[in-house]
Amino acid sequence: MPVFVQQSGRNRDARISPAHLNMLPRLTPPPPPLPTLPREQEKYEVVIVGSGPAGILSSVLLARYGITSVLTIDDKPSLTDVGQADGLQPRTLEVFQSLDLAHEVLTQGCQFHEVGFWNPGPGNKGIVRTNWVPNISVPARFPHEVTIHQGRIERILNEDLEKNGGRVQRGWRVVSFVIEAPVEERGFLVVVKMVKTGAKGKEKKRVVRCKYLLGADGARSVVREGMGLKLEGDHTDHVWGVMDTVVKTTFPDVRKKCAIHSPEGSIMIIPRERISAKQAITRIYCQMEGEVEKDPDLDNVEKNTDISAILDSKRAARERRGKISAQRIQLQTEKVLAPYSIEFGEADWWAAYQIGQRVSPRFSQSDGHGTLRVHIAGDACHTHSPKSGQGMNVSMMDAYNFSWKLAHVLNGLAPPDFDLLATYQHERLDIAWQLINFDREFSKMFSGRIGDDHGLTHEQFQDAYVKMCGFTSGCGIEYREGRLVKNGRGSLKERGREDEYLTPGRRVVNAKVLRFCDANPRDIQDEDLPSTARYRILALLPTSFKNSPEKYADMLTSLTSAIPSIFPPSMIEVLIFFPGERESLEWTDFPPCVREESEWLVFGDKFREVYAAWGVDEGVGALAAVRPDGYVGVAAGLSEVSVVEKWLGGVLAKV
Amino acid sequence: MPVFVQQSGRNRDARISPAHLNMLPRLTPPPPPLPTLPREQEKYEVVIVGSGPAGILSSVLLARYGITSVLTIDDKPSLTDVGQADGLQPRTLEVFQSLDLAHEVLTQGCQFHEVGFWNPGPGNKGIVRTNWVPNISVPARFPHEVTIHQGRIERILNEDLEKNGGRVQRGWRVVSFVIEAPVEERGFLVVVKMVKTGAKGKEKKRVVRCKYLLGADGARSVVREGMGLKLEGDHTDHVWGVMDTVVKTTFPDVRKKCAIHSPEGSIMIIPRERISAKQAITRIYCQMEGEVEKDPDLDNVEKNTDISAILDSKRAARERRGKISAQRIQLQTEKVLAPYSIEFGEADWWAAYQIGQRVSPRFSQSDGHGTLRVHIAGDACHTHSPKSGQGMNVSMMDAYNFSWKLAHVLNGLAPPDFDLLATYQHERLDIAWQLINFDREFSKMFSGRIGDDHGLTHEQFQDAYVKMCGFTSGCGIEYREGRLVKNGRGSLKERGREDEYLTPGRRVVNAKVLRFCDANPRDIQDEDLPSTARYRILALLPTSFKNSPEKYADMLTSLTSAIPSIFPPSMIEVLIFFPGERESLEWTDFPPCVREESEWLVFGDKFREVYAAWGVDEGVGALAAVRPDGYVGVAAGLSEVSVVEKWLGGVLAKV
Repeated sequence: MPVFVQQSGRNRDARISPAHLNMLPRLTPPPPPLPTLPREQEKYEVVIVGSGPAGILSSVLLARYGITSVLTIDDKPSLTDVGQADGLQPRTLEVFQSLDLAHEVLTQGCQFHEVGFWNPGPGNKGIVRTNWVPNISVPARFPHEVTIHQGRIERILNEDLEKNGGRVQRGWRVVSFVIEAPVEERGFLVVVKMVKTGAKGKEKKRVVRCKYLLGADGARSVVREGMGLKLEGDHTDHVWGVMDTVVKTTFPDVRKKCAIHSPEGSIMIIPRERISAKQAITRIYCQMEGEVEKDPDLDNVEKNTDISAILDSKRAARERRGKISAQRIQLQTEKVLAPYSIEFGEADWWAAYQIGQRVSPRFSQSDGHGTLRVHIAGDACHTHSPKSGQGMNVSMMDAYNFSWKLAHVLNGLAPPDFDLLATYQHERLDIAWQLINFDREFSKMFSGRIGDDHGLTHEQFQDAYVKMCGFTSGCGIEYREGRLVKNGRGSLKERGREDEYLTPGRRVVNAKVLRFCDANPRDIQDEDLPSTARYRILALLPTSFKNSPEKYADMLTSLTSAIPSIFPPSMIEVLIFFPGERESLEWTDFPPCVREESEWLVFGDKFREVYAAWGVDEGVGALAAVRPDGYVGVAAGLSEVSVVEKWLGGVLAKV
Repeated sequence: MPVFVQQSGRNRDARISPAHLNMLPRLTPPPPPLPTLPREQEKYEVVIVGSGPAGILSSVLLARYGITSVLTIDDKPSLTDVGQADGLQPRTLEVFQSLDLAHEVLTQGCQFHEVGFWNPGPGNKGIVRTNWVPNISVPARFPHEVTIHQGRIERILNEDLEKNGGRVQRGWRVVSFVIEAPVEERGFLVVVKMVKTGAKGKEKKRVVRCKYLLGADGARSVVREGMGLKLEGDHTDHVWGVMDTVVKTTFPDVRKKCAIHSPEGSIMIIPRERISAKQAITRIYCQMEGEVEKDPDLDNVEKNTDISAILDSKRAARERRGKISAQRIQLQTEKVLAPYSIEFGEADWWAAYQIGQRVSPRFSQSDGHGTLRVHIAGDACHTHSPKSGQGMNVSMMDAYNFSWKLAHVLNGLAPPDFDLLATYQHERLDIAWQLINFDREFSKMFSGRIGDDHGLTHEQFQDAYVKMCGFTSGCGIEYREGRLVKNGRGSLKERGREDEYLTPGRRVVNAKVLRFCDANPRDIQDEDLPSTARYRILALLPTSFKNSPEKYADMLTSLTSAIPSIFPPSMIEVLIFFPGERESLEWTDFPPCVREESEWLVFGDKFREVYAAWGVDEGVGALAAVRPDGYVGVAAGLSEVSVVEKWLGGVLAKV
């Protein structure tokens, strides 16, 4: 296109980079400048210990929200030697999608849409397929799990962190921290001591001050220990073997998730991503027989304990565990799969581990003056067995619940009378207990044999598997009532067990809608409720709107103009829906502020999905407000604008 | 997950990086090592001149195919000052998707699904919306155009090139080239001279040898000039104004593509990507009245020409063009949109340009011994008006057609008696002429006034717009018969005007299918026919397969095992389809080589899409072979395996 005259504006160059999300507004004084040497004076608003799934996702979210004064450290020297988890659950995929981070995972990972149940064959010999069922039995944006190397997920998150201006500092290990009395101004009360790992000769020390400390440092969390907390729960552990390898087998369902109960024991097959045109990794879990004692804690024995007995038990456990080898995992798999043959390639990775179900009694610690300064997330909070693919997911959902709350607190976006950070433990400790209880029950069922003689029928097992899906998928999580969740259904329909209607405490389920301004089909859950730490109002207009739009002008003006102006700029987005495609509506049917404030947020229910999926009567309409993490906060009738306004006033600072 | 013993294989670390596509096999001797200094001895298999859309896509494709000895140069010092094009057509999106490069474009670009037609209002005053129609009226994987900054598309392609080990060398300008007589062994016959641009004082010279030279260096191509060719066609140019800016308007359809014919003239509105929550760029095209002479070429005047007349005409043209300004574009837009108001923000970019419809008579040049050594692509081959969003698309499709052919030739994958590179000009020159003819017709219609008095009715204009969609979308392109396209329908149904049935010369249209091994839904066009430069056989089994699979065992063995083994390894992939979801089929219903060779390429027609979309009778079945660029090469009946084998033998070397 030969141009003979052209002129560019000053912003044109910026258009070639990926769009960055808008930073949150900040009502508090700006953070201190990022430290330069000498390190003795380092101050950050936030220190994150650990860059596993919980830590790195927290770092990513804070960076995207515009929190720049963050130090993330990890004691490992590099990204590579990480990760045994490999499963992403539907709710995690939804959250990734709402951050535009799901693409590589969805296209390069292994999706499993079905699970095959195999049980002992006739005469209790061999195995036969009882049936396949859909792996995910609840409504979800992506109705499947995905498996992919945990290191790859961490790589994706690290790249996004760096795109957003952050970086993990590697090779630093936290030794201890103290919370000082609140004397220093602006709240840099947490003093964290760390050392450089792998340093030869003398260790390099470093002291950092911060306002908030997040321990995402795993099951042996130093931060949790510093809070004086231990994981509590079982005294014995199950021992598990797991192997990732390329197999050659006559077993027909090796590319599907399979729960296999055979006369010779049980295994679970988890298909993994392809590594070439004709090869994929297969993960095999097998539970080894019996249990072992939890490793005795020699540093904390009570007085008069018989140490020699502890040492004996330690030695016995070590011997049991020593018997586990790659060969033994393979042998067990061969026995279970008979009469199908299986050959194993070189093991990509194999491991044996012991694990019980344990939870930390608290997740947060205050500075003694009521401000919660230190928090833990992920494996630091809970341990449990791996085979339901929960660990990495629940850990990241801890981070997802925590990060926007911390960002709002740092930026002064929570009302002064509301301890927003306290809701983190309130909401996530509850989930951790559900996780532990689920895992205990499922482990028992999975380890049991199936058949008439064994007390557990296939139907019971399958029923339990399907029922548990609400929890395991992450989609059925429901946060308890509190300031962030006001119970009550407004004009929403009552939900039955199968429905994913809008419900305070539950996440907004996806629906396809048609955008009014440009006739674009949209997936409302992630495209228009992205994870940008904003609150949203959903206004679902009734059928009568098209005949007398003027009746709704005051309400729409209030929602799109009056209410948002009470709060910090950009903190409230208003999504407006009407039944049908576009009818004969024109912009002039809406008050002018709708186009000004919500031009890209007006949607027609062309695909007849959104009113139905959300439980809204087209003749009646509904209002709801949604938290920054996509969970419904409050529901109301269309005439109850004040209910929404009041709820927002309780959770968001006014200006 | 506390592990007490684990062991990793040597490949585990590699799993955290994105999967790279498999390199093509190479039957020819390896390329020379990549040059180090001194530059005088530089040799590459390929030199690509220019890193605009055609050049950079060629570089990306060659790098993905494993062609490592490639030098791509560009005379511009950086990526930023590039690009006036902004539209991606559906076929280009399909190709991007088949390379897994569409995600950012699809999520961050502006999609237009509808086009609004506006015409003079009652009494020839103002404008009224006549109607909206779907913007894309042919079956397409993505039924819409996308607009996004050209520089951003180039950034995406540059990043992918670097991921695949390539890099653009910037600041080098080609001065000339010669093709030497074939004396030097291994064919490095093209000698390219270049200089460092922007060098102060004396220029830095560089001489490079290569086997193949691709000129993707724009409308004023030095490579084309070196081939002794000129763009031929119109002697006069239309003058156009274009502006990218943020507007505030009462015009209701500003977020849709609009063709607006008003009593005051015509404009076209092209919505562009959003740059913040409440702002998007709008592109406005307006054709200025009248025509100008094509710029006279003073270097090539014939003897006895009156130079002063040429200079007069040049001056007159300059004066006309000088009248064009941002203000004039805005004024014209205001006049056309009245009675709607419009305010303009700072212009992101604006330009005026003159353009006619011109084509180079040839795209390729041989070394005098029959080997086509020098080629051109993109704007070097054709120029035309911009408003149908064709330029960048046709240019990239040139590159897409060319690159796999060059890779096959370099690696010895084409049969010795087949001049594969000659098909590039054969196929793409044809398309260039279609482009020029389309553009001439559409420009005329668009510039014309609409109304009873003006000869062109709205219905005629809209009809033409819809009919042209096959061409403008890129989806209706049909390559002519040749060795790569064998006419004939085999057992395929006859296609009507509306159908996108499998047809030799046309691209394979997408259909959703269910993969047998893991019950994954797949978009067959891009997920299982990715752009990896491989040939594919499509075998669509009939309904009777499920009752007597043994009848098809020989054919399936021949397709999946015997035929591919004649050709270089990995060059043929075999996709197998059966009607219905999975019926009661088991792997044992297929001969063993199907699972061994095509485990991930067996699909059930669960969604009732693929047989219907491709024109295959479920009772009869069909065979087809597909070229590496996704265009059908040959169709046959299920019993005509030899037809497919023979066609492949004509286009692919045997081992």
